[in-house]
Amino acid sequence: MFAPLQNDTFLRACLRQATDYTPVWLMRQAGRYLPEYRASRAKAGSFMGLATSPDYATEVTLQPLERYPLDAAILFSDILTVPDAMGLGLSFALGEGPRFATPVRDEAAVAKLEVPDMEKLRYVFDAVTSIRKALNGRVPLIGFSGSPWTLACYMVEGAGSDDYRLVKTMLYQRPDLMHKMLAINADAVAAYLNAQIEAGAQAVMIFDSWGGVLADAAFQTFSLAYTQRVLSQLKRSHEGVVIPRLVFTKGGGLWLEQMAGLDCEVLGLDWTVNLGQARARVGDRMALQGNLDPNVLFANPAQIEQEVAKVLESFGTPHADTRSSGPTHIFNLGHGISQHTPPESVEVLVRAVHAYSRRMRTGTPH
Amino acid sequence: MFAPLQNDTFLRACLRQATDYTPVWLMRQAGRYLPEYRASRAKAGSFMGLATSPDYATEVTLQPLERYPLDAAILFSDILTVPDAMGLGLSFALGEGPRFATPVRDEAAVAKLEVPDMEKLRYVFDAVTSIRKALNGRVPLIGFSGSPWTLACYMVEGAGSDDYRLVKTMLYQRPDLMHKMLAINADAVAAYLNAQIEAGAQAVMIFDSWGGVLADAAFQTFSLAYTQRVLSQLKRSHEGVVIPRLVFTKGGGLWLEQMAGLDCEVLGLDWTVNLGQARARVGDRMALQGNLDPNVLFANPAQIEQEVAKVLESFGTPHADTRSSGPTHIFNLGHGISQHTPPESVEVLVRAVHAYSRRMRTGTPH
Repeated sequence: MFAPLQNDTFLRACLRQATDYTPVWLMRQAGRYLPEYRASRAKAGSFMGLATSPDYATEVTLQPLERYPLDAAILFSDILTVPDAMGLGLSFALGEGPRFATPVRDEAAVAKLEVPDMEKLRYVFDAVTSIRKALNGRVPLIGFSGSPWTLACYMVEGAGSDDYRLVKTMLYQRPDLMHKMLAINADAVAAYLNAQIEAGAQAVMIFDSWGGVLADAAFQTFSLAYTQRVLSQLKRSHEGVVIPRLVFTKGGGLWLEQMAGLDCEVLGLDWTVNLGQARARVGDRMALQGNLDPNVLFANPAQIEQEVAKVLESFGTPHADTRSSGPTHIFNLGHGISQHTPPESVEVLVRAVHAYSRRMRTGTPH
Repeated sequence: MFAPLQNDTFLRACLRQATDYTPVWLMRQAGRYLPEYRASRAKAGSFMGLATSPDYATEVTLQPLERYPLDAAILFSDILTVPDAMGLGLSFALGEGPRFATPVRDEAAVAKLEVPDMEKLRYVFDAVTSIRKALNGRVPLIGFSGSPWTLACYMVEGAGSDDYRLVKTMLYQRPDLMHKMLAINADAVAAYLNAQIEAGAQAVMIFDSWGGVLADAAFQTFSLAYTQRVLSQLKRSHEGVVIPRLVFTKGGGLWLEQMAGLDCEVLGLDWTVNLGQARARVGDRMALQGNLDPNVLFANPAQIEQEVAKVLESFGTPHADTRSSGPTHIFNLGHGISQHTPPESVEVLVRAVHAYSRRMRTGTPH
């Protein structure tokens, strides 16, 4: 059905197999920093107009690949499609973040929640298939979802928050309701990611964007356990090909030892984490992804190259033995790219990752 | 000049001396969650109206002590008084955060910066003396300032930020300007805290509220080094009494080993950190302060008591030997108290800390 894959560097690195260079892609790489994205969005009328149209989603997903030699594509969508399909009424006001018309704040609202009919998310699966076809085997396609806890944050708060007061009030005051919501979210996310895999996603990533706002102990109980509940339900392979699973907890650096126990192949890290220390703490059973501060892209080219080298060096040299598996690194930002990023900076970044990491493998980085 | 201190539990714990119970105070304990504070603010007309009047600052600093048996008072002021004295024009719009009229964004603006004449901050030192007198020896008074990096964030951004793009652009693109600004900030903060000590502050705390937004390596270079530059200039004692120094980096949990090298007595921790692990990582040469999630105060009394016990137990039993020094814990929140907190919850919290920690010391916590 799909063309054979030409660049498997990202998938190999996910599975801790040797690669000629460190693969790179960027969170939110199809986004507002690209003028062609802004033009597409203007045509579509809104963010959700782009996300709900397989044609537009395909168009914008491929835009950064036309500019830069990135090693993976990621589905253009939003982390909140699942609660939208649960009937919470997602919208994006201009210049603001996402908003739910009917947030979930009491026992009655939680009682009404259920795993949505995946047919309501058909537009996402259609987009996955359309993008995979359009990629024509160039690079692999990553599917994704928000984590159960991150979805719960938005479902309870109804929008972004700076203190997470409402969702944490429910967590501390009514842990029974929170557990019920998280179990439903986990099962919904698992069904959603499995359907993306069936539609053509070659790897899947869980964004635990708000795991880092939790207290120690609460993170393990209310975020990590439900991320694991998703992972345990995911398809390990599709049509005979292994599907790597990536987990990214923003602000989760303190809990790496516990995240190392997750049933997944890759841990994403934000820029507060030292990659060398993370490698020592996680051990060799997972690949690491990350973690340049997106604000480095506002510096000049020589400075960007220097910061790229620092991130690559902090991870250290991956093993060069093509016959065995070992620690591997996937280069990324530590968070989504800023809408204000100069597109030329991304070109500098991608080329620097490829060139420097090739030289590291031959022992001549400088 | 001042009345003798009646309750030295907080100061003893800062210096790792045995106490009968774990002392407790709360960041932002004089604040909007108290109806009497809101009444004072209405009379004063604005936040800065309160902070610049020694009488009002005294009135609101003492308000939480009238309600709760807290073990310390903290100067009512703002972390941004120092850059205001540098001429940046601080204001607080209603319902918004602080704002500077003339942010520092280029070489010319940095060139104009200098350590301000401390006379411009006389209103703060007068407030310290007035509060210390009004306390009449009841509990010790903590003075404070923002850290050099945290001040720089506001000075460059001009207001709060969710991505710190402007200040990080300067950091990555013009590290020379950033170092120059941070050196001036550090020297200004040191002079400011020393003047607070001379005016009557019995301990001083540096709030590195935004240290945690920095990348690994950048934190050490641009925040930690300048916090140390402040600490190295601070008076160790005043009129023969030791002045403990506290440092709190929100989101700094990954860097505890490096923070353990700071020349201070107490490290403040946010709620993401496990206190037992922190104690193992920091070693016995510092006291730890923290770290309940302020959102716990939205739960019911039994749940608040349970979460207080969890925090106390995670630190573990302090040594009970009154003859030697050892690891000690000062109870606090992991961040400032929310304006939406029910005042009754604070009563439950403070009483639970005192009662449970007394029982821990006698081996009968339950």
